[in-house]
Amino acid sequence: MAFEMTSVVSKLQNLSTSDHASVVSMNLFVALLCACIVIGHLLEENRWMNESITTLLIGVCTGVVILLFSGGKSSHILVFSEDLFFIYLLPPIIFNAGFQVKKKQFFKNFMIIMSFGAIGTLISCCIITFGATQAFKRMDIGPLEIGDYLAIGAIFAATDSVCTLQVLSQDETPLLYSLVFGEGVVNDATSVVLFNAIQSFDLNRLNPSIAMQFLGNFFYLFIASTLLGVLTGLLSAYIIKKLYIGRHSTDREVALMMLMAYLSYMLAELAYLSGILTVFFCGIVMSHYTWHNVTQSSRVTTKHSFATLSFVCEIFIFLYVGMDAMDIDKWKFVSDSRGTSIATSAILLGLILLGRAAFVFPLSFLSNLTKKSQHQKISFRQQVIIWWAGLMRGAVSMALAYKQFTRSGHTQLRSNAIMITSTITVVLFSTVLFGLLTKPLIRLLLPHPKHTSSMTTTEPSTPKSVIVPLLGDHRDSEADLEGHEIHRPNSLRALLSTPTHTVHRLWRKFDDSFMRPVFGGRGFVPVEPGSPSERNGHQSP
Amino acid sequence: MAFEMTSVVSKLQNLSTSDHASVVSMNLFVALLCACIVIGHLLEENRWMNESITTLLIGVCTGVVILLFSGGKSSHILVFSEDLFFIYLLPPIIFNAGFQVKKKQFFKNFMIIMSFGAIGTLISCCIITFGATQAFKRMDIGPLEIGDYLAIGAIFAATDSVCTLQVLSQDETPLLYSLVFGEGVVNDATSVVLFNAIQSFDLNRLNPSIAMQFLGNFFYLFIASTLLGVLTGLLSAYIIKKLYIGRHSTDREVALMMLMAYLSYMLAELAYLSGILTVFFCGIVMSHYTWHNVTQSSRVTTKHSFATLSFVCEIFIFLYVGMDAMDIDKWKFVSDSRGTSIATSAILLGLILLGRAAFVFPLSFLSNLTKKSQHQKISFRQQVIIWWAGLMRGAVSMALAYKQFTRSGHTQLRSNAIMITSTITVVLFSTVLFGLLTKPLIRLLLPHPKHTSSMTTTEPSTPKSVIVPLLGDHRDSEADLEGHEIHRPNSLRALLSTPTHTVHRLWRKFDDSFMRPVFGGRGFVPVEPGSPSERNGHQSP
Repeated sequence: MAFEMTSVVSKLQNLSTSDHASVVSMNLFVALLCACIVIGHLLEENRWMNESITTLLIGVCTGVVILLFSGGKSSHILVFSEDLFFIYLLPPIIFNAGFQVKKKQFFKNFMIIMSFGAIGTLISCCIITFGATQAFKRMDIGPLEIGDYLAIGAIFAATDSVCTLQVLSQDETPLLYSLVFGEGVVNDATSVVLFNAIQSFDLNRLNPSIAMQFLGNFFYLFIASTLLGVLTGLLSAYIIKKLYIGRHSTDREVALMMLMAYLSYMLAELAYLSGILTVFFCGIVMSHYTWHNVTQSSRVTTKHSFATLSFVCEIFIFLYVGMDAMDIDKWKFVSDSRGTSIATSAILLGLILLGRAAFVFPLSFLSNLTKKSQHQKISFRQQVIIWWAGLMRGAVSMALAYKQFTRSGHTQLRSNAIMITSTITVVLFSTVLFGLLTKPLIRLLLPHPKHTSSMTTTEPSTPKSVIVPLLGDHRDSEADLEGHEIHRPNSLRALLSTPTHTVHRLWRKFDDSFMRPVFGGRGFVPVEPGSPSERNGHQSP
Repeated sequence: MAFEMTSVVSKLQNLSTSDHASVVSMNLFVALLCACIVIGHLLEENRWMNESITTLLIGVCTGVVILLFSGGKSSHILVFSEDLFFIYLLPPIIFNAGFQVKKKQFFKNFMIIMSFGAIGTLISCCIITFGATQAFKRMDIGPLEIGDYLAIGAIFAATDSVCTLQVLSQDETPLLYSLVFGEGVVNDATSVVLFNAIQSFDLNRLNPSIAMQFLGNFFYLFIASTLLGVLTGLLSAYIIKKLYIGRHSTDREVALMMLMAYLSYMLAELAYLSGILTVFFCGIVMSHYTWHNVTQSSRVTTKHSFATLSFVCEIFIFLYVGMDAMDIDKWKFVSDSRGTSIATSAILLGLILLGRAAFVFPLSFLSNLTKKSQHQKISFRQQVIIWWAGLMRGAVSMALAYKQFTRSGHTQLRSNAIMITSTITVVLFSTVLFGLLTKPLIRLLLPHPKHTSSMTTTEPSTPKSVIVPLLGDHRDSEADLEGHEIHRPNSLRALLSTPTHTVHRLWRKFDDSFMRPVFGGRGFVPVEPGSPSERNGHQSP
């Protein structure tokens, strides 16, 4: 494995030198990306396939072809580097997730999303850690420490809900979509934060004080990262509004938004916080304030170019994972213990199924207890879909596994080789098999999505390619305020039973009177500095 | 210098590992980019400054600050790597140049642009090589071979007209703008092709047969690169039109356009062609065909996101050059021979002034001879502006100088150190001083731009941020055909006197009857496969 790490480094060098071999691999890679896009387009209406599975399979096939061409020597066209993944590929995806999320739905279901994403991931991690500890100790795997077992928990608690999101419709099943989507993002962040927390603590001498410290660290990371993202987003909104950058050039606006989003991620890394959470909240704030301060063409451009960037990064990752899976060096180590490797993968898959069931159904039950109306409750069918949506494992698991099991010092160990190959097996198996079953399963459980959807959709069902951007739906603001003005929390009981609604209403008021006058946002036309609407805003509160 | 190369490599490694020092420098760099954009915006209406000078100065200042903070030890936050420049930064800039160019103006002035860009660059290169050979042999510089002198010619023949283009207006002086702009792109390509041709030939035993081979190679590169770009562009148009990618997702269209553009560049590198020319012509073809096949929002997105990408890359380069100029290691070598270094820079600057004058005025004179009407001739004032526009030297010169004078084997030589520092001096001096004088000079020479502009502008003067994209001006097509229908080439003399117009008219006919039905383009709404307009197109010719 040490060889692999040096080969990662040399590959990266090659990518940046005009070495002809690296030009060949870059050509191949870009051409494959184009092919994936075209094939993904052609298979769009296929009953079984989706883009991620297609891309993963193309990656695996390419790996096999390269393996054959090089005479079984190597498939080293590109080797998975977790740093490339965390520094360049993940930020655009997560930022776009925050930027495109329907904020109203997200914040309405904020409590349940957070409990699924944070508490659920913790439960899942504990169960997988416990199960793995029990199972692997009896198997001939090799020495694994408690830190390794905790890391395995964090690695396999990281879900990849891209497959399911490609099937669900945001307009037809908004509640389900926002739950699956929101949980996915919070889960990504939680598992990375958890993993980093595990790595930085000495877990061999575990006592209550260290456990408390661990929890404290976890919440500090969560809150500080969120705040940093919000502040960077607000700063971008303020700069663009105050200086009215669009006056001279739309390119400057777009460039500034992109750079500040990336800056938020890098600042979080600088302060040892969670870049994923930061960039997610930066995306939310940017779409709430900054996006409304820029010119019309910048809005269309940012909306689509962020989505495109995220799309390309996703394809890149699946292709990358697929090609890397065929890397022969990894498999050499475990070729003599194929049985153990398969057993490990099977156990892990079982633990994933169990660990997820152990929090989706109980937490849904608890959530349903707090809701009065039947509309807001999560039906059993929806619970099954939420459970299923988080079964796939993806690039985050791969990257974390590489981080844990190829560290310098103990990279040639048999146990590490087995864990890496098991991770690859679980990722391929869950993505391809569970992924293939997702479309049929959802069609079975939601036969008439329009009727199953229990929430009233406030969003118009927009066609996929709209000319005028509808990211910020102007109807939301008014409809929302009017709707909740009626059942004002005039008693303590009402306050307790609808806490999120009340918080939402108070936030709206605060937003309208304090935030928007300073940071802009919908309802305000892009004003010139010192225009009437701006000055009024400053004086009226 | 060997130390520098390894430090480049280690920096690139650092960028891709989660090393905390590299996170710090990436933060600093992204924050500086943001600062440059904001300051550039604030100085937009300043009489003297422009974005490139501002950015360059910010880079130099940051270099000084880092130098002071590190106690004079290093300013190694980022070291200029010519591969980073050629593989990642230059392609987006050149592609965007091709994508945004006003094709009608460009092709109308095609002959003069090509003669300025190709023949002019050759003349300039010869004069600089000759002058340098004569001057440097008498100075105490060290051993330079004939290949080095030829490389110096190619290095300092590469202009950087970004400064001037920021001042000229495409709408007020279309002829001048298209000449300066077109020459800039062709010059970039020519000098890189020339440089590569020089590097790949053994020039010590020069004879007529090798010279012919050299010229043949040069033209082969030119034609093959252009063809490759055109073919890739047509392929993208065909795929997007035939499969109607936008039906499912606009993101796929945008992603496919971006990836195919980059693929064209990489394919050219793969075939040892000139990627710059390829990606430029790919941009032209994409804006002529592909762009008209995509959905409306994809058009807005591609137009602005390509411009933004190019803008960010430009700022990146100037910042990068500015910071690298303060790299202390380079200056240590020449600190004992400051006089020689200054003399070298002064001689090179003189040769640049001379070399450019030696082709702008004669070639303009020749061009004016072929034009009948006073309108189409290039006035003396315009010739001075063209001459001035190409005096700045930029990142291409830097990158080529690094390529030539830091190659392994003879990197610690005094002559090489002097050439590198002289290049930096020339780049800084010409960009800052000549750049500062550009705005006043153009105001002096073109006091009333609207009246001096001798061409009638067919483009409406669009504001800088337009809501509906006007990249493809629908008026062009018809107006053009009608206008030229009147003076049909009914005699041989007419054919000879207006060859480009005739070619242009024939091309239009060919385009309308053969190309557009297959590859799409303006005049055709984005049709579904098998729609009437498409079938008619196939049958009518």
